[in-house]
Amino acid sequence: MSYFRQNIDLMSGYQPGEQPPAGVKVIKLNTNENPYPPSPKALQVMQNLDGELLRRYPDPMAGEFREAASQVLGVPKEWILVGNGSDDLLTMLMRACADRDRNVVYPMPTYVLYRTLAEIQDGCIAEIPYDDDYQLPVERLIAANGAVTFIASPNSPSGTSIPLELLDKLAAHLSGILVVDEAYVDFAESDALSLVQKYDNVIILRTLSKGYSLAGLRLGFGIAQPSLLEGLIKVKDSYNVDAIAYRIGAAALLDQDYKIANAEKIKTSRTKLTNNLEQLGFKVLPSQANFLLAQPSQKQAEWLYQNLKNQGILVRYFKQPQLEDKLRITVGTEEENAALIKALTQPCGSD
Amino acid sequence: MSYFRQNIDLMSGYQPGEQPPAGVKVIKLNTNENPYPPSPKALQVMQNLDGELLRRYPDPMAGEFREAASQVLGVPKEWILVGNGSDDLLTMLMRACADRDRNVVYPMPTYVLYRTLAEIQDGCIAEIPYDDDYQLPVERLIAANGAVTFIASPNSPSGTSIPLELLDKLAAHLSGILVVDEAYVDFAESDALSLVQKYDNVIILRTLSKGYSLAGLRLGFGIAQPSLLEGLIKVKDSYNVDAIAYRIGAAALLDQDYKIANAEKIKTSRTKLTNNLEQLGFKVLPSQANFLLAQPSQKQAEWLYQNLKNQGILVRYFKQPQLEDKLRITVGTEEENAALIKALTQPCGSD
Repeated sequence: MSYFRQNIDLMSGYQPGEQPPAGVKVIKLNTNENPYPPSPKALQVMQNLDGELLRRYPDPMAGEFREAASQVLGVPKEWILVGNGSDDLLTMLMRACADRDRNVVYPMPTYVLYRTLAEIQDGCIAEIPYDDDYQLPVERLIAANGAVTFIASPNSPSGTSIPLELLDKLAAHLSGILVVDEAYVDFAESDALSLVQKYDNVIILRTLSKGYSLAGLRLGFGIAQPSLLEGLIKVKDSYNVDAIAYRIGAAALLDQDYKIANAEKIKTSRTKLTNNLEQLGFKVLPSQANFLLAQPSQKQAEWLYQNLKNQGILVRYFKQPQLEDKLRITVGTEEENAALIKALTQPCGSD
Repeated sequence: MSYFRQNIDLMSGYQPGEQPPAGVKVIKLNTNENPYPPSPKALQVMQNLDGELLRRYPDPMAGEFREAASQVLGVPKEWILVGNGSDDLLTMLMRACADRDRNVVYPMPTYVLYRTLAEIQDGCIAEIPYDDDYQLPVERLIAANGAVTFIASPNSPSGTSIPLELLDKLAAHLSGILVVDEAYVDFAESDALSLVQKYDNVIILRTLSKGYSLAGLRLGFGIAQPSLLEGLIKVKDSYNVDAIAYRIGAAALLDQDYKIANAEKIKTSRTKLTNNLEQLGFKVLPSQANFLLAQPSQKQAEWLYQNLKNQGILVRYFKQPQLEDKLRITVGTEEENAALIKALTQPCGSD
């Protein structure tokens, strides 16, 4: 007999993208990290931390970060909930809303973790397929009537953004919670923050892992009306964010100029990389994120993934419907992108 | 209609001990922090961190910390699972093992979070009362037959330690998992680590919050056979520990001399504080932890709690059966303990 619940035994667990050990030289375009260093102001906070902060328990609500987010976004601090990465907020939402009698709904393909978390929770899962152009299937999402519905915008792995009016329609028609996961919003032209003013069932998720180059720090946050956050706070780990992470994160968040400048560089590189890939015959979806979903015309995607890996370049390959013929490629520095294009122009070996 | 599951609506959420804002001068004897600073070696790691660590995702298994724990405890690194505090391990255990059809069992009074986490999980809860001497009710715990059974040893808030032979008997007779939560083991005379070699259903939990003065860092770990850890890894947040926490923590763990020296100071102070409280008429349970559960003879415990608070001294008061006539007092520095005794000798105001 197993020690675990049946749904746990049946599931396989989330596979994070490959993380090469420190010191191994690779061009890492597989997990959508920002290629530029974190804000110097954040690093300065890190280097001047007081050891006394470590001795005591942290503020359970990460007050300093909450204040910073409130200031930057122009919402009251009571509308901000801080997490150990935005994955932590996804976990809170799943634990507060889903079980075997309550639906979890999301379009597919999307962030793989939604399925993993729903499986852990033994939730009743409804996956609604995107078409090849990644138009949001609004009517089918409404019909699925989730206790909680997850929409990533910009979506991963497609990079496509969902128009605000479609999210607004969804929020208006759902009787459950609508989660708009804006992990990649710092590279997009628009956002859905205005929906939280309008609807008490909408939560917007943000992260410092992408736009702020702080994937190693584990810091994300949700923005919603306090009545919604109240339920999530009940299931939140008491001290979910450590005392140094939220101080470093607050400094990074307040340095908007630095974040915006890096995002602009990445958006310029994204356009150039898209053009270069198209010249090599790839079909590339229009991206509002810091990565591209690219379909090669000749070589098989899986073969290319392996071939690039052999040359020290990591990209992401998903062996699943709608994705097995494509590669997800993080936009790197100009040098990294050039190395990728060179490797794709002259792939080593033969198939 | 609520957006949340019924069990979430019905529960009230965990109330962490009061955390005064930074800068407010109090003598803080309410949440069992270590009164001495973290290891200088850990602080040195903190002050020399490379910003590049923040840019990339951390190692999902916190390899450097795992290696350090393996070395210090003499178990293979595959037997170590690192968490965002040992609370994170408690959450993993609850999510992997408990649901409305599977029992969660623990003796009472104990760490309040066990109940909170079981409520979040909608687990079927069996609370088995301790007697006034805190002898483990082994037969009743066996009879309750938990899918998962939680035993804190040393126990909070009693400070009492559970003899190894009783834990051994429990492990042998339970068909589910036995969790031995050793958060306070660094102040105790013995531990139950040997049980993980003997039983595949036992996990030992440790934390760096108490013995290592790192409550603000959120770092704990579990030790168990890999077959048990496998189920927990499935429900673990992908990147649960940030890239700087596990590096600082590894340095602290490797500095055993420093940890032991501080624990010895605290144990000496514990004896002295016990004697002083007894001279004031308190009944004090024998403690193997860094706190005392003390029952006043004259004034009511709740009145004393409030009176001390008015004098700038925080202790913990639990308004629940078996505890409402007692105070839980963290062992502080010699100066802090003396200030407490002085305040208790001459309480301000009148009742």
